[in-house]
Amino acid sequence: MIYLDNGATSYPKPPNVLSSSVNALKNYSFNSGRGGYSASVQTAERIYSVREKVGNMFHFEPQNVAFTLNCTMALNMAIKGSVKKGDHIIISSLEHNAVWRVVNHLRNTGTASFDIADFSFNEEETVRNFERLIKPNTSLIVCMAASNVFGVAFPIKRLGEMAKKHGIRFIVDAAQAAGIIPIDSEECNIDILCAPGHKCLFGNMGTGFLAVKNDVYLDTIIDGGTGSESVNPNQPDFLPDRLEAGTLNNSGILSLGAGIDFIHSKGIDNIYNHELKITDYLYNGLSQNGNVVLYCPKPEKYKSAPIISFNFKDYSSEKTAALLAERNIAVRSGLHCAPLAHNFFKTIDRGTVRLCPSVFTGVKDCEIFLNRLKKM
Amino acid sequence: MIYLDNGATSYPKPPNVLSSSVNALKNYSFNSGRGGYSASVQTAERIYSVREKVGNMFHFEPQNVAFTLNCTMALNMAIKGSVKKGDHIIISSLEHNAVWRVVNHLRNTGTASFDIADFSFNEEETVRNFERLIKPNTSLIVCMAASNVFGVAFPIKRLGEMAKKHGIRFIVDAAQAAGIIPIDSEECNIDILCAPGHKCLFGNMGTGFLAVKNDVYLDTIIDGGTGSESVNPNQPDFLPDRLEAGTLNNSGILSLGAGIDFIHSKGIDNIYNHELKITDYLYNGLSQNGNVVLYCPKPEKYKSAPIISFNFKDYSSEKTAALLAERNIAVRSGLHCAPLAHNFFKTIDRGTVRLCPSVFTGVKDCEIFLNRLKKM
Repeated sequence: MIYLDNGATSYPKPPNVLSSSVNALKNYSFNSGRGGYSASVQTAERIYSVREKVGNMFHFEPQNVAFTLNCTMALNMAIKGSVKKGDHIIISSLEHNAVWRVVNHLRNTGTASFDIADFSFNEEETVRNFERLIKPNTSLIVCMAASNVFGVAFPIKRLGEMAKKHGIRFIVDAAQAAGIIPIDSEECNIDILCAPGHKCLFGNMGTGFLAVKNDVYLDTIIDGGTGSESVNPNQPDFLPDRLEAGTLNNSGILSLGAGIDFIHSKGIDNIYNHELKITDYLYNGLSQNGNVVLYCPKPEKYKSAPIISFNFKDYSSEKTAALLAERNIAVRSGLHCAPLAHNFFKTIDRGTVRLCPSVFTGVKDCEIFLNRLKKM
Repeated sequence: MIYLDNGATSYPKPPNVLSSSVNALKNYSFNSGRGGYSASVQTAERIYSVREKVGNMFHFEPQNVAFTLNCTMALNMAIKGSVKKGDHIIISSLEHNAVWRVVNHLRNTGTASFDIADFSFNEEETVRNFERLIKPNTSLIVCMAASNVFGVAFPIKRLGEMAKKHGIRFIVDAAQAAGIIPIDSEECNIDILCAPGHKCLFGNMGTGFLAVKNDVYLDTIIDGGTGSESVNPNQPDFLPDRLEAGTLNNSGILSLGAGIDFIHSKGIDNIYNHELKITDYLYNGLSQNGNVVLYCPKPEKYKSAPIISFNFKDYSSEKTAALLAERNIAVRSGLHCAPLAHNFFKTIDRGTVRLCPSVFTGVKDCEIFLNRLKKM
């Protein structure tokens, strides 16, 4: 199988991720922070070491990194935990349903209203598009680092500066960027960063996190046992306990730590460069295929995540993906849970076929894919 | 290590759980329900087979089984998704913080009020204690199947009948029962069952589920991409998609399936009988130790989960657990995230030391534990 669906989850995982998972299943599957026996204490230390790795990578305090089931859960906790009745939110025109459905839910329940700021290939214009939507009650800006459909990146640093100037909390969905495009939350004035552990960070499925700045206080959407302040009828105020109720996915979290180790061993910049080289190759090949429609410029460093969307002949994106699947090529088709992005790029009727290589994708894979597509 | 903390998470896991996890990490770590390529389709089939296993075990439709990070997340989704403004909830006097903190949050936000019904060793009295708290606006009864601290079981079937008679939704937290005490949701009139995957069901940490009856509609607390109805600004109405936003913990879910296979291979009744034999042995041994205080009668079939709480000399429960940890015995001390239960049994000041054996605990382990305790 030639796997070009790393935007859904990365495959394969680096070898150290599997070995770390197995080690965790055998030796660190105890309830951390609840037991005083050495297996529990050692488990807690290992889990903490992953908080440090995530914290170091994105510039957060380790204890401010809270682990979740996935990025969606993290975004729900970040967004719903941030707003109070009457607040106004601004999101981008390319957001995933993990953001759009959340703000719709807040609107449906009469909690908050929202507006959508258009993406532009001109960074300053994108920032202006957000800024002009600010109202006196705007309390939150939520923006993805890069589109999961079209790859285009948002000017996170500029948006963060603008949000800070207006005293507005800034949440970034780094689902398709964390592990490829370097993100420094201090530099970018990010108040809360949400990311999956199983995409470009190479952890197992079932992992995600939100990382928050010291002065960010969140209401909780999940309450429960934390092994701390047990007589307190409310979630503790301190992190990560406040945001981590119930038992964690230990082996998943330790696999995420191994994924981050792998990224450091390769160098995040080398990974990004490799994937851009691959998307460059794919993009050129697709451009030469007269039956292909492309929607965005070629992915470029810091302007895009290594993701390409296209369509083929007059086929539905599903048909193209099915024909590719028959040819042992794994891609995703349809709306990729991001109808806003398809509305924006006028692909809502067909959806798109999405190509997401990883550091393990070679030029040879691209050749095979392009040849098989050519013969379709 | 003699591990008597299976109430936190079961250890060891059966061998087929580890092999199934590794197999899933290698072969079924694709995004199910999103891709049309064969690896994704096969993954979806495997995930569905675990819905069937859970559904069969507790008598739910497979598609009505939604997987979560843990039981706490499931309880939050079940409880918060059930209530509307002005509702009244009844919970038991032994509930875990995964329920108590949830209803407190609902009270704090002015959404719902709640009352606490006292447990009684007399089943009819327990039911009466719940029934007499019913008000015109009572919409929900939430009760654990068995106490995570003292092991005592609730008369779930009688409570379910009573709830049904009054047209009140009935949620059961089966955290310490699922996999040991047989639960038939039809027979017990359970509308929503919540359970962890990693305790008596032997799956990995990072797994849990809620299973709902066909006529149960829940508001969502987590919204996001489902790979279905992507243009819908709200979560789809159908299950499991409505309750499963974002990427699932595939290897965890498949490990849970393997855990259920293991239970069937042993026989749930044989497992329960074995664990009762072990708690019987432990209870008798503790009773003969003049320095031990016990709080409940000896665990008995269908009256208790195999859990014993005790204290030793005038030591804090933490001190006893620490001394046992030095002697390579793993137990948990303190409040076990269930202050209500400690208030009820008057152990709130000291907490308790908790013993939870599993099917893998032998009489020899008990002997060693009892001897080491005797010498302390």
